[in-house]
Amino acid sequence: MTSAPSAAYALLEEKALQAIEQAADRILAEVGIEIQDDPETLAALADQGGVITENRVRIRGGLLRERIARAPRQFIWRGNHPDRDVTVGGDRPVFAPSYGTPNAETLPGQRGLGTLEDYQALVDACEQSTLLDSTGFLLTIAHDRPEETRHLDMARLHLTRSTKPMMGTIISDAALRAVVAESGARPEPGACRLLHMINATPPLVYQANPLRCLRAAAELGQGSLVSSYMMMGATAPTTLAGCLAQGLAEVMLGLALTQIWRPGVPVVGGLFAIPFSMQYMGPIFGGPESQLVQMAGVQLVHRLGVPARGDGMVTSSKNNDAQAGYDGANTLGAARRSGADLILHTTGWLEAGRTQNLWKFRSDEAIILGRSPQAAGT
Amino acid sequence: MTSAPSAAYALLEEKALQAIEQAADRILAEVGIEIQDDPETLAALADQGGVITENRVRIRGGLLRERIARAPRQFIWRGNHPDRDVTVGGDRPVFAPSYGTPNAETLPGQRGLGTLEDYQALVDACEQSTLLDSTGFLLTIAHDRPEETRHLDMARLHLTRSTKPMMGTIISDAALRAVVAESGARPEPGACRLLHMINATPPLVYQANPLRCLRAAAELGQGSLVSSYMMMGATAPTTLAGCLAQGLAEVMLGLALTQIWRPGVPVVGGLFAIPFSMQYMGPIFGGPESQLVQMAGVQLVHRLGVPARGDGMVTSSKNNDAQAGYDGANTLGAARRSGADLILHTTGWLEAGRTQNLWKFRSDEAIILGRSPQAAGT
Repeated sequence: MTSAPSAAYALLEEKALQAIEQAADRILAEVGIEIQDDPETLAALADQGGVITENRVRIRGGLLRERIARAPRQFIWRGNHPDRDVTVGGDRPVFAPSYGTPNAETLPGQRGLGTLEDYQALVDACEQSTLLDSTGFLLTIAHDRPEETRHLDMARLHLTRSTKPMMGTIISDAALRAVVAESGARPEPGACRLLHMINATPPLVYQANPLRCLRAAAELGQGSLVSSYMMMGATAPTTLAGCLAQGLAEVMLGLALTQIWRPGVPVVGGLFAIPFSMQYMGPIFGGPESQLVQMAGVQLVHRLGVPARGDGMVTSSKNNDAQAGYDGANTLGAARRSGADLILHTTGWLEAGRTQNLWKFRSDEAIILGRSPQAAGT
Repeated sequence: MTSAPSAAYALLEEKALQAIEQAADRILAEVGIEIQDDPETLAALADQGGVITENRVRIRGGLLRERIARAPRQFIWRGNHPDRDVTVGGDRPVFAPSYGTPNAETLPGQRGLGTLEDYQALVDACEQSTLLDSTGFLLTIAHDRPEETRHLDMARLHLTRSTKPMMGTIISDAALRAVVAESGARPEPGACRLLHMINATPPLVYQANPLRCLRAAAELGQGSLVSSYMMMGATAPTTLAGCLAQGLAEVMLGLALTQIWRPGVPVVGGLFAIPFSMQYMGPIFGGPESQLVQMAGVQLVHRLGVPARGDGMVTSSKNNDAQAGYDGANTLGAARRSGADLILHTTGWLEAGRTQNLWKFRSDEAIILGRSPQAAGT
């Protein structure tokens, strides 16, 4: 058990944290987690002491914590050039761009399905950024390239046009392996070259593909970012405490699996939640509930002994307007105050993550770095 | 000594707070505060044990703290209608509108020197607001009315069109007395009808007019909001600790004076600082320095045993854009987290306080209340 940096804001006291951990343990032991279409993972969990009923595993939280304790508290995320290596879990947060945004706007007013040309513009923007430590991955989707190979088209742009650390693909485990091969990454203690976005599917489910990708990444000695991205009122309880307990149970299982497949492989844990509006039938970014989950979530992940993820300037807004700035400041602020080690979706995000906007990318960067002319009233 | 609400974020530990208090005491005892053109205040401070050298008073911090201890930890701010009375220093913050903005934009695109028509529109907006507890004062300046009597024109709009608590004028002590008379306010233990904005003039100066207004307000049993509004690098040190020590010394003197003139009169203390950009030659709102000063400032004011002021959605931006939202969220967020009791400049503020914009007023309100359609991604 390690603690967050001393500058971090400890939202919850020890007693509250323990109550949430006990509730997560009870969920794991009594309700269990559904493991969809992945007999290998089920077998491995049975081997570790889990009780399997059909495709559901019930398991002791303490057992998962023992496995997670094999993971490094911090690790080196290797750049494509060694000068760009960064430490995840060190003294300062590592900033990564928005991930998974299908639409792109890289020319003013031309918003649409992303293309490889958009992708290249976004890789270049990440590389040139004085804020971002990484070029991320899936900056948009190169819809104009064949689906079977577009992950390689995108990966090659990261590998040939950038010196910074990158993430990997999770479109399938075969694709993941192909990108790792393309990058030349090799297993290395306390370090990785690629970091993979592994999401649980709340409530209390892991689908086959993320599980296979998690396993493939671990076997290749590459990192995973295991997150629960909950919608409160839709895929998680509306209460903060209930949401945290569910998310912790989900993330603990994923984190433990990485260490079952390969002890010591780098991993980051993330708990994030957004209220789901019953009125508008959509998620609402930037509100106080998300900030509280973020801050408590980092505490809970740090207590597992691994680096924690935070989120950046995310928003529900369609435009880079006052709402976007307000939502973004609140979300990024909560991540920073909580002591998050890796901040995803730092810049460029619009429309609840449906669009990566290059103008907002640069605006966010200027605002965060305090270099906006507006910031000085000019 | 009372403490902030338990939900407040205690940025500084006891040792750090004591170090700043000791530095403030040293400033008060060794450097002193300049009292410009106000022999009555100098005489009163000499009477209390201050050492006067020309127009400068040097005095023990402990002595000022004893006087400040006479002030109530919380008080009732009376509305024009009793249903609108609010408690300042109670369980929740009290929200007041932007104050002192000379320009107004109450019709889209028509930004200019404020008029009485603008003023009326702004009073009505404050009255209708489901967020604001007060209609404030000096919502803009009624430039189209004679300077000698415009404070009465403005006050009458508050008194005739609003049921909520209001602030008073500080254009002169005679004007202050006239507005108090117009309001019919009477002294009352633990309560006041009008609250007056009394600013120190950093570094370490009080000008005659605020001192006379402070005295007039106290004599009439009306409240004062004693603030130090520092520009770091221009009127205060660039370091956070130095800035806090200077501001605390300034605010302690003003708070003590209110209680010297009338023990028990309601008062609020405020420490606020914005970096002054040497590059752009202007103040920069919304940055991390201001947030840290805000959070520590509320701790220091609460330790004096009086309610603390925070600031709302202030920004350097000229427009209600992403920068405005980001700056505002950061400043308001720091005020809320710190446990500030009275939040000034909650809504409508643009251009470093030069403009009150009615559209931004409504936008800020919707954002803060979480009622913006954009917040739901629609």
